Parts: sequence; structure tokens; C-alpha cells
Amino acid sequence: MRVEIITIGDEILIGQVVDTNSAWMAQQLNLIGAKVERIVSISDAHSQIVSAVAVAESRADVVLITGGLGPTKDDITKIALADHFNCGFTFHEEIAEHIARLFARFGKPLTDLNRLQAELPSACKPLQNHLGTAPGMWFERNGTVIVSMPGVPYEMKGLMQAHVLPMIKQKFNAPTILHRTILTIGMGESWLSERIADWEDALPKHIKLAYLPSPGRVRLRLSAYGQDESLLRTELAEQEQRLLALIPELVYGFDDDRLETVVGNQLRKMGRTLSTAESCTGGMVAHLITSISGSSEYFLGSVVSYANEVKMEMLGVKEETLSRVGAVSEEVVRQMAEGVRLRLKTDYAISTSGIAGPTGGSEEKPVGTVWIAVAGPNGTTAKRFQFGHIRERNIEISAYNALNMLRKELLKDESGSL
Amino acid sequence: MRVEIITIGDEILIGQVVDTNSAWMAQQLNLIGAKVERIVSISDAHSQIVSAVAVAESRADVVLITGGLGPTKDDITKIALADHFNCGFTFHEEIAEHIARLFARFGKPLTDLNRLQAELPSACKPLQNHLGTAPGMWFERNGTVIVSMPGVPYEMKGLMQAHVLPMIKQKFNAPTILHRTILTIGMGESWLSERIADWEDALPKHIKLAYLPSPGRVRLRLSAYGQDESLLRTELAEQEQRLLALIPELVYGFDDDRLETVVGNQLRKMGRTLSTAESCTGGMVAHLITSISGSSEYFLGSVVSYANEVKMEMLGVKEETLSRVGAVSEEVVRQMAEGVRLRLKTDYAISTSGIAGPTGGSEEKPVGTVWIAVAGPNGTTAKRFQFGHIRERNIEISAYNALNMLRKELLKDESGSL
Repeated sequence: MRVEIITIGDEILIGQVVDTNSAWMAQQLNLIGAKVERIVSISDAHSQIVSAVAVAESRADVVLITGGLGPTKDDITKIALADHFNCGFTFHEEIAEHIARLFARFGKPLTDLNRLQAELPSACKPLQNHLGTAPGMWFERNGTVIVSMPGVPYEMKGLMQAHVLPMIKQKFNAPTILHRTILTIGMGESWLSERIADWEDALPKHIKLAYLPSPGRVRLRLSAYGQDESLLRTELAEQEQRLLALIPELVYGFDDDRLETVVGNQLRKMGRTLSTAESCTGGMVAHLITSISGSSEYFLGSVVSYANEVKMEMLGVKEETLSRVGAVSEEVVRQMAEGVRLRLKTDYAISTSGIAGPTGGSEEKPVGTVWIAVAGPNGTTAKRFQFGHIRERNIEISAYNALNMLRKELLKDESGSL
Repeated sequence: MRVEIITIGDEILIGQVVDTNSAWMAQQLNLIGAKVERIVSISDAHSQIVSAVAVAESRADVVLITGGLGPTKDDITKIALADHFNCGFTFHEEIAEHIARLFARFGKPLTDLNRLQAELPSACKPLQNHLGTAPGMWFERNGTVIVSMPGVPYEMKGLMQAHVLPMIKQKFNAPTILHRTILTIGMGESWLSERIADWEDALPKHIKLAYLPSPGRVRLRLSAYGQDESLLRTELAEQEQRLLALIPELVYGFDDDRLETVVGNQLRKMGRTLSTAESCTGGMVAHLITSISGSSEYFLGSVVSYANEVKMEMLGVKEETLSRVGAVSEEVVRQMAEGVRLRLKTDYAISTSGIAGPTGGSEEKPVGTVWIAVAGPNGTTAKRFQFGHIRERNIEISAYNALNMLRKELLKDESGSL
């Protein structure tokens, strides 16, 4: 089943609003086996709406339209759709009553403009909007479904879940699409693709692979298309197992997992606590960890030691070490991790020290040089990384690699203690 | 000048990625007087790409394409464009060298796949991508410009700023539009718009005002349209002065200023140092400050004291106070600021303690209750805030309000010492 989405509204075209509705709709449609083939954003101009709907109707099985249904003058989707379907308007008394009830609930007087929202193109079947005044509209012509919904995200979501998704599911007997995303860290897209090339080339035609990179990480998404859901599920699981066997050390999670959640869950499971000592990441590791609700169960705190004096006084890093090998060094990053672990009395500690850039590099330690250490009950591990020249990226990639080093230590300690 | 944007990639159509690139591009294009008339998202299928480009080319003056330029097998934009322009491929030695240099810098071997990224459709003028391996491509045909860029946001932004925007500006002789953005913090959009309503209503027709809200802040953008640049500049400056007189305490900067930069520059100017003690913000204040290059001149460090034990041992917060009034209280947040200022030996210190949510609230201290303090040479100021229910928003708004409280203290101390 081919779906096209049309979003109407100048606010998207001038960049004032990011279109998050389409992504949500696409996810929901995927789950019922419908495939979004195109998303189009246009302005709220009559001619634009009519021509976009006509083109989409000629190609797709389902056209979902959002936006342009408010009571104000620039919201003209309704008129454009009546013209497109060459029909008049019908006043729906039950919709008018719903609108009147909504206004009464908020203690506001009903305006004529709002009462007029119950007047809809005669060709449509109205869809009750429990969360707002603008009803949805369901049209059918020559086997194609065209649905119009408000652009307010929670109203659109309410209409989709209450009416549109179930009605589409019932009308079209769609094929099944299953997705599985494998989350990796530690290898760039090009090297990763070479490492798994043989496996990728041998994938059956109905299973597709996509690479989705972000700073320091690559998501690998497998999509299986077919009719037999349980067969697809088995095939997808088999391919996933083969892929995991090729890159076991790179995989930190699946689907919507976040590395900070994966690490947090592992700490909670093992009943262990964490602290951080951050120089070049400047608090970002702590920020990522504490962005997760419930992190106070395992995260006790951090010392962001930007200045050498803070490294010495708050973490116990030795002055002699700093003057002998410098702050960006294996010895210092080890002392930082061990120092914060001792002082904050945690089971594990992460530390970072590096040159985030864009200035401050030397021949021996160019911009992007980062040392990361993890201290735990079984000792301390330290590693040198070489990242790029962009400060923000270096900070972000360092923070995620620090979390990943901790993840590996936790798994090692867990399996060692079994 | 009419612009259409085409974004290529299944990740948008299955809703795994929200298309934020288009909004950014639309904003930038608006600033040079170009209007985005349509945004289309399609899959990375050859026929889809060719037909979408053909339709857009027939309508628009400029077609901007993002996505599908990586070295992996699902990236076929390049081939589709060569077919669309009915041309062969040319290998660009200088691009290949740039790619090789990028790989050398990271100490990684160059793969054949990556070297092939220097092979481009012969009809295009290559645009050097300083931040990645996939170059941009600039095509022209019958007065229409077609540009292809990678979908990775920072690479796309780099190409737009270095090449695409200036080249479009030069090619299309657009009318003069001057912009001035006034950055405010401390008052919501509705209240702000009421406070400046009389001034806004009296604006001349060719000067427009836009409200650009983000968590905790509102940007006010004035845009002046016309032909006479020096007259426009004078008019804009006059309106800015009138606006500033209405909201002096809310304005922290202009145009691309960031609050963390404004505060950093002020500290540098006054020759003062800063530390932070963070509970509910979990390191985000330190992260914002250290995201600015050169921040080590004035920022010495932070203690992220998530656990009460860390508040006591690392900051000297009294156990008696914690058990009497709780961690989210004026007394504790004052002790935190004064404690970190003393221990890290800085001139100023910021502290935060609050309930970020979504759980952990009480009737007396609901989710979103946040105490912030600033300690300085002239004493300590503390303030209670009440934010909303969304954890991420609460952390972000708290961090910015903490920086803003510091900004005001610095200005007060600077004027007092004159």
C-alpha cells in the first residue's frame, strides 16, 4: 500500500517549525505495513493544495493531509478539498454540538467562525476529533483514500489512532514490513561496510540494509518485506544473528535504545554506581547520563576539572605528573578516574582529557587527541583516540566513546564474576 | 526566487529521522530573500530521484537536494543525477586528494569506495566539502540551478555557508533584506508580545517582526525589505533602539550570539573566573560553557553533585540543612554556590538544584521546581523558578536561566565597581 503525506503550512516552508508530524505518521504506518513513498510540504495556498492533492491521488492508495483546518482565514484546506472533489458543503449538527461542548468546558463563548468548523465538504465522512474543534475528513474515490487532519500534533495523533489507522488497516490488506535496527559504535561507515560486505551482498532481495550514521555511531537498519509475518520474523532474526557474529564488539543496542540508557540499565542491573571526571568533555558525559529519568539511582556525580588546579585539588592528580607528561596523557586520565572513584565512593568512574580544538594542538598531540579511562573494581583501563577538528563533534564523540568503554568494562566484569 | 528542496533517504520516509535539514535551509534561504515553495521527501530509488528532480527543475529557480551521497551501496543520488543530466562521470584528482588527506589525518587506510567519491557527473561543478568525503555538486541548465549535498547536517550546513548561499546570492540579484535579531530570556512569547504590542503595531509596512521561541528564550527578528540599503540600516537601528528601551532587562544579545558566549566574553573582559555546582542540570551548564572555544581562560570546573553525599563532601553542604529543608531549597543552593566558589577558588559560581521530573515532585515542590544561585565577590543571590513537566526542557531552561542570572550579576558588579 502506497501512502503519500501532504503537510500544509507556511511555518514549515519558512523553517519556523520542524515537521515532526510526518515522521510520527510514517512510523505508525510502517507498523501496519503501509509504506510512505513521498512527503510533500506546501504553503496554504488554494492552487498549491488542489494540485498537490491531485498529483498524490493519481499515484497513491492513501493520501494523508495535515494542516490548514483552523478557524482563521489562512486555513483553506477545506475549501480546496471541496473544489477538488467538486462538491458543496454539509453542516453536521453532531460536530457543532461537540465544538460547543469543548467551548463550554473551557468557559469560552462560541464564535460563529468556530461553529462553521462543523460545515464540511459533502463528499467526506467526518472523523470525530476528541481533542480539538477541527474534525478529520475521510474521502474515497476510485479506490483511493484521502484524509485531511489538523496539523496540531496531538490532535492529528488522536485522529490517527482513533480512526485513520484502523480504517486503513481494514480497507487495505497490506503486506507486512518488519524493521530491526542494530546500533553500533567504534567504526566508521566505510570500514563497517567493508567488514560486512559479504554478508550484505548475500542478503535476500526482500531484506534491505540501510546505514544511518551520526557522530561516532552508525545504525544499521534491516527491513524485511513480504506476506508471511512469522516467516519474515524468523528470517530477520537469522540475518541479525549473522550480522552480530561479524561485529560483536561494535553493537551496543537495538532499535530505539540510547547508549546512556543501555549503560544506566546495566549499572542498575549489577547494582553498581558511577561517577565521572571530565576535562575535554566539560560535563557532557554527566549531562547525557542525567538526561535519563531515574539516573540518580546509579549516578552520584562528577568533577569537571577544566583547570589543572581542579584536577589536583578535587581529584588528587599529581602536580609532578601534570608537569612531566601534560594533562592530555594516559597517566593523568588514569589518576583522574581513580581519583573521582575514590572521592565520590563509586564502583566505577569515567574520565576524559583531550584537545577538543579548534586550537591548542601540537605535533605530538594534535587537535582531536583524547585520552579516556574507566576505573572499576578490577582496575583501570585507558585508551587514546584520535578524532577530528570540530570542537562540538569531538566533545560529542568523546562522550559517547567514554560511555562505550564503560559499557565494555561492565560486561567484562559481569561475565568475569559469574 | 523560487526554491524547492528535495530530501532523499528512506530513513525520513519510515520516520526514523526527523527532517531538520529542510527547516535550517529554509531559514537561511529566507535571509537572502529566497522563498521555499515546496519540500519533498523521497526514497533513495533511482526513478524517484530522477522524476522528482525533473518536476522541481521545471518549476523552480533553485533546486536543493540533500542525501544519498555516502560511499555505501544505498547512496545512488550521483548516478541518478548523471542520468538526469544525460552525462558521464569525471574523476576529480583534487577531490580524491582531499579525501585521502581526511583519511590520513585519522590514520586510516583509504578504501576504493571512498576514492570513488571523487568521481562526479561531468555536468557538475564540484563544491569542496571541508567536513566530509562527499563533495557537493552544482548544476546549471536553462537558468535553473540544481545543487546536491550530503544529508549529514553539519556537512550540508558547511557546504551551504561556504558555497551554495553565496553562489545563489550572486547568481540571482535578490532585493535587499536586512535582518536584526534581538535575543531575549526571562519572559514567554505571549507576555512579551503584549508588552511590545504598541511598538509592533506602529512598525512601518516594510519592516516585519517574527517571534522565534526556543525553550526559555524568545528571539525577535526584525526584517527590513527595500532597495536603499543605507536607509534600511538606519530605519532598522531606530526600531531596534525603541524595542530595547521597552525590554532592557530581557535582552542578552543579538543575531548569532549565544548566552554562553555572552557570559564568557563578559567574564574575560572583567578578568574573572567561574565554577558551577550542578544538581538538576547534571553538568549541562558546564557543558554549555565549555562548548565555547577558549572557555578554559575563565572556566575552572564544576562539581555535579547528584547525590546528597557529594553535595556534603565535595561542596560542604551541611547535613542538617539537607535533612531540615531538603536538597531543592534556597539554603542548599546557596551553600552549593558558596561551597564550589570557595573550593575551586573562583570569583563567581553558579549552582542549581531542582526536580527535573517527570517523577519526584510533591505538593510543596512540584516537578519543575528549580532553585538557582549565583555567588560572587559581593555576595550570593538565589531565586526560585517554576518550569513545566518535561525533563529535557526543564534541564535546558534551568541551565539557560542560571547563565542569565550570572550575566545580570556580572553587569551589576561591573557598573558598581566603576
